[in-house]
Amino acid sequence: MADAGGEPDHLAGERATAHFDVDAMKVAWAGSQHAVEVADRMARLVASDPVFRKDTRTMLSRKELFKDTLKKAAHAWKRIVELRLTEEEANLLRLYVDQPGYVDLHWGMFVPAIKGQGTEEQQKKWLPMAYKFQIIGCYAQTELGHGSNVQGLETTATFDPSTDEFVMHSPTLTSSKWWPGGLGKASTHAVVYARLITEGKDYGIHGFIVQLRSLDDHSPLPGVTLGDIGGKFGSGAYNSMDNGVLRFDHVRIPRDQMLMRLSQVTREGKYVHSDVPKQLLYGTMVYVRQTIVADASKALSRAVCIAVRYSAIRKQFGSQAGGPETQVINYKTQQSRLFPLLASAYAYRFVGQWLKWLYTDVTQKLEAKDYSTLPEAHACTAGLKSVTTSATADAIEECRKLCGGHGYLNSSGLPELFAVYVPACTYEGDNVVLLLQVARFLMKTVSQVATGNQPVGTVAYMGNIQHLMQCKSAVSTAEDWLNPAAVKEVFEARALRMAVNCAQNISKAPSQEEGFSELSPDLLEAAVAHVQLIIVTKFIEKMQEDIPGPGVKEQLQKLCSIYALHLLHKHLGDFLSTGCVTARQGALANEQLGKLYAQVRPNAVALVDAFDYTDHYLGSVLGRYDGDVYPALYEEAWKDPLNETVVPDGYQEHLRPLLKQQLKLSRL
Amino acid sequence: MADAGGEPDHLAGERATAHFDVDAMKVAWAGSQHAVEVADRMARLVASDPVFRKDTRTMLSRKELFKDTLKKAAHAWKRIVELRLTEEEANLLRLYVDQPGYVDLHWGMFVPAIKGQGTEEQQKKWLPMAYKFQIIGCYAQTELGHGSNVQGLETTATFDPSTDEFVMHSPTLTSSKWWPGGLGKASTHAVVYARLITEGKDYGIHGFIVQLRSLDDHSPLPGVTLGDIGGKFGSGAYNSMDNGVLRFDHVRIPRDQMLMRLSQVTREGKYVHSDVPKQLLYGTMVYVRQTIVADASKALSRAVCIAVRYSAIRKQFGSQAGGPETQVINYKTQQSRLFPLLASAYAYRFVGQWLKWLYTDVTQKLEAKDYSTLPEAHACTAGLKSVTTSATADAIEECRKLCGGHGYLNSSGLPELFAVYVPACTYEGDNVVLLLQVARFLMKTVSQVATGNQPVGTVAYMGNIQHLMQCKSAVSTAEDWLNPAAVKEVFEARALRMAVNCAQNISKAPSQEEGFSELSPDLLEAAVAHVQLIIVTKFIEKMQEDIPGPGVKEQLQKLCSIYALHLLHKHLGDFLSTGCVTARQGALANEQLGKLYAQVRPNAVALVDAFDYTDHYLGSVLGRYDGDVYPALYEEAWKDPLNETVVPDGYQEHLRPLLKQQLKLSRL
Repeated sequence: MADAGGEPDHLAGERATAHFDVDAMKVAWAGSQHAVEVADRMARLVASDPVFRKDTRTMLSRKELFKDTLKKAAHAWKRIVELRLTEEEANLLRLYVDQPGYVDLHWGMFVPAIKGQGTEEQQKKWLPMAYKFQIIGCYAQTELGHGSNVQGLETTATFDPSTDEFVMHSPTLTSSKWWPGGLGKASTHAVVYARLITEGKDYGIHGFIVQLRSLDDHSPLPGVTLGDIGGKFGSGAYNSMDNGVLRFDHVRIPRDQMLMRLSQVTREGKYVHSDVPKQLLYGTMVYVRQTIVADASKALSRAVCIAVRYSAIRKQFGSQAGGPETQVINYKTQQSRLFPLLASAYAYRFVGQWLKWLYTDVTQKLEAKDYSTLPEAHACTAGLKSVTTSATADAIEECRKLCGGHGYLNSSGLPELFAVYVPACTYEGDNVVLLLQVARFLMKTVSQVATGNQPVGTVAYMGNIQHLMQCKSAVSTAEDWLNPAAVKEVFEARALRMAVNCAQNISKAPSQEEGFSELSPDLLEAAVAHVQLIIVTKFIEKMQEDIPGPGVKEQLQKLCSIYALHLLHKHLGDFLSTGCVTARQGALANEQLGKLYAQVRPNAVALVDAFDYTDHYLGSVLGRYDGDVYPALYEEAWKDPLNETVVPDGYQEHLRPLLKQQLKLSRL
Repeated sequence: MADAGGEPDHLAGERATAHFDVDAMKVAWAGSQHAVEVADRMARLVASDPVFRKDTRTMLSRKELFKDTLKKAAHAWKRIVELRLTEEEANLLRLYVDQPGYVDLHWGMFVPAIKGQGTEEQQKKWLPMAYKFQIIGCYAQTELGHGSNVQGLETTATFDPSTDEFVMHSPTLTSSKWWPGGLGKASTHAVVYARLITEGKDYGIHGFIVQLRSLDDHSPLPGVTLGDIGGKFGSGAYNSMDNGVLRFDHVRIPRDQMLMRLSQVTREGKYVHSDVPKQLLYGTMVYVRQTIVADASKALSRAVCIAVRYSAIRKQFGSQAGGPETQVINYKTQQSRLFPLLASAYAYRFVGQWLKWLYTDVTQKLEAKDYSTLPEAHACTAGLKSVTTSATADAIEECRKLCGGHGYLNSSGLPELFAVYVPACTYEGDNVVLLLQVARFLMKTVSQVATGNQPVGTVAYMGNIQHLMQCKSAVSTAEDWLNPAAVKEVFEARALRMAVNCAQNISKAPSQEEGFSELSPDLLEAAVAHVQLIIVTKFIEKMQEDIPGPGVKEQLQKLCSIYALHLLHKHLGDFLSTGCVTARQGALANEQLGKLYAQVRPNAVALVDAFDYTDHYLGSVLGRYDGDVYPALYEEAWKDPLNETVVPDGYQEHLRPLLKQQLKLSRL
């Protein structure tokens, strides 16, 4: 999406060499013509509004940045109301504002928690206030001493039948709520997770709606200690968010502010379960993880867009006798690092689209009380969350390095993109913890297959165990690797054989648990192999759909092959040690990769244009649509506060005495 | 190195389980008892001086941070003079001040450039002023449009015989000097690299001493445009440095400010070479890269120290029936990610110590006009710079992730450590460019071996080509992998076979250059294999020395095995596809790794204590020597400027109107 203007396009030559229709590719990327149109409209709305400027964001102090976030959030809400935006439009507008803030938690966690865990009555009471922003809510789960292990939380909610209230309390320093976004300064309310204690018994972790701040003057309520937990990675980045700390000193809330959809405490203090099945909560988990995978493709595609465009602008070496230098994108080393990331962006996009379908499928089944596919859906989404976020975090940093020295400047946009993205590896389930859950599911599936059960969904391939344990790849030329069936077979065989190896080794241990613990590093690798297979498979399946537009499917097929074959090359040890491919076949895959890179080269800039990002959203001088990088870099530099004066603050006190040999030395 | 105090040591239990003498290990790490003592003394000097505090550094604005750097630099100089510190002590003091600033370039680049490239007369004129800080110098090489390719620089220095001056000029925007540290605000002088033009002919890039700012009031001299290039990755981090931009508009300097040791321009404008051999410059390159490898081990060991200590404090999951949770360092997944990094820190330390020896060896040979080993020394240092800095950058981020969510807080120290470290992958030779230089040297060596030449130094193993091309590893048990000879053989065979494969594939191409370009992604991998072999070999050789102290050598031997075997596991594809090991042998190596992790576990905290870092230098709440992490995290939070008020700035303007439903909407 070009910003308007009659300026020359330094990348016009690159765009002219594309072998496909970019507008049709935009549709394939966005999912539909409608999706392209509405995203485009919202992106331009944000880009054209001076309140949403972010070019000096990394130069703001923490307080200025937070105030700027409050301002943008209020302005965005104003625009949403004024323009009567649909929910889809409002979500996109917030996406393009591109600044983490309390609204993310309000809409993304507080409201869904009440929807999912509140009774109808509770929803009727709280949701209208939340929808109108009469209250601002956050989601207070993690504690200073407790992260992924929710069962380890220490905050207590003790029922007092004498007043019909819960007493919220933080018994230790480590029980302080710690990290919740929006908690530090903005939220008036929170869904707080605490150990429910009634009749002297601990019933484990439950959610409670707790008011934190006065609705009159925003001051913390009595017994409530609130603050921000301090600066985080990067300039700008997540520092716009008031991740907070919260301590309770015997704070009382009415009994009906316990979220009571699944279980209740009666007036007398009896703990009772409702007949609502607990599995319903898993639907939310699938939903949240699906959005995280979609976010991974967004973050990765932004980084790749910047790196591809700048690689086409940047020139280095290769001049003969004073002629022009070579565009760095022409170097095979650059291609072999960059194009797999370009392919990954598309791969994650398509697996994200499939996850959307999975979520609706899971929801329908839950409504029909069919819980049979839940474990598979849970393992699949956990694995995809883990693999895509880890790979994306690494890829953003790789893109930064691919931009050379200038990638280190904030004006490149890449440092902030990295710093704001990396927590995705930790939140909503630490990536290693999630992979171990996947591994546990795989071990269970292997043992079920052994007893003749037919697995379904993304583990269906494991039913084909007899073939996959002994098959030998028929690939004999580099071109054979373009055959999706050949690729799928070796990825299936690799994943299955690694899982079976682990299962066999576990069975040799004194106990299942000991074996699982000892083998856990291998289990992580087996889980990754399984998840990579899912991504490869969904990309291949996408290629079996009708994808309109001249050349579009052909390009995507190349990217699909690159995605799979670069993984094969990267994890060659897996494929060789399990006997899925021979060394010769591995070399052929590598050879084919080189050919594919050459074919993608003339299409690279058009392939990132298809993401349809405005210069505002990209936020990168290096990734400008028009490629006019150097004047812009030069101009950005002068915005730095350090350039407000020619002679720096501190010269008189600390530089001049040094230069004039007038440092006052102590006599020693 | 514990900070003083009678507080409880939460890691005392961990320290009690160590099987070796920590003080003796400190000597092995530092290189000598003297090195331990002087480092310890300087570290405490810095840690105890309030001027050198850095606990709120990430909260400073750019201007405050820069001023703080000026202050610390002047104070450090004051202390160096007052205490009459030796050069060794002064360097260590600056190291422990731990804040990038103009002094780094003054001492690290400006002074060495004059020493290396200036005539005796020039040295006599300029060095005394530099030594006393009467002038501050920087090193202006890279330009906005030109990085690694020095020959592409555009700045011109045109000799004007009518006035006996050079005219320094920036003919284009892209010729603006860009990146030099200390240039933006602090330096009074620079060594500027420019195309020397005399008698109408371009003689290529030469160095010139150019005054930039008035020594009276620090204002830029006429024709000189100076500024800072803007914010960089992270909070704090490298933003303390004034990386700068410089443009010349026909600025005149006397002819004798060309650095004339290697070539001169005469009064008449004739360009003449001196009889000083150009190779002398390579000595400096070896020196600089040796310091970069040493820095890699420092940065990596700091990150590992933080992650190991906090992994021993942090508990998660694993509780049975409400009992205490498990220390995360006990998880095999944590060990398999963390302990290879611990081993790498030691590996880089020892290869760095060896590089110091190599530098003296090269220097002696240069003085004796023996240039025969220069290409090998050049390739070796280029490769080590590339591999150790890339791995260290990744490892710091991995350590951050290994600390869970809290690693994302600035108070963990890890975000700043990462942000300040990553440019090492780009400066002093981009890591990919350097690896290609290594690969070129390897290809040359392979062809020389084919003609019967015996290679020397770190490529000597290639002379053993007949054995290494066909040997089969004799390893048949997991314990066999503890034999250094067995490890060395497979690393040699892998490196050689990958190099030979590349050479053979290149020879099939239409031309050598085309082949090299096409194969460059494979060549990178071959170069990495070669460099990893060097590191493994130097670690093994270190283990053949006498290393005093109970248990010290035993621990190091385990780390040496972990370093080698984790690489074997990570790059198993290389070893299998070249037939150096079998799948079964690969599995045995992995099995042995698991055993080694279990043996290192009780020694882990003591192994990072041996780095002997003060809490000040570590700069991490999570890495505190006493392990008293949670109260400290809690306390740090309140220092954030956002916590200066309970109700945040912006509430009245942007939050209250929203909550009170009083946003002023436009009529639409």
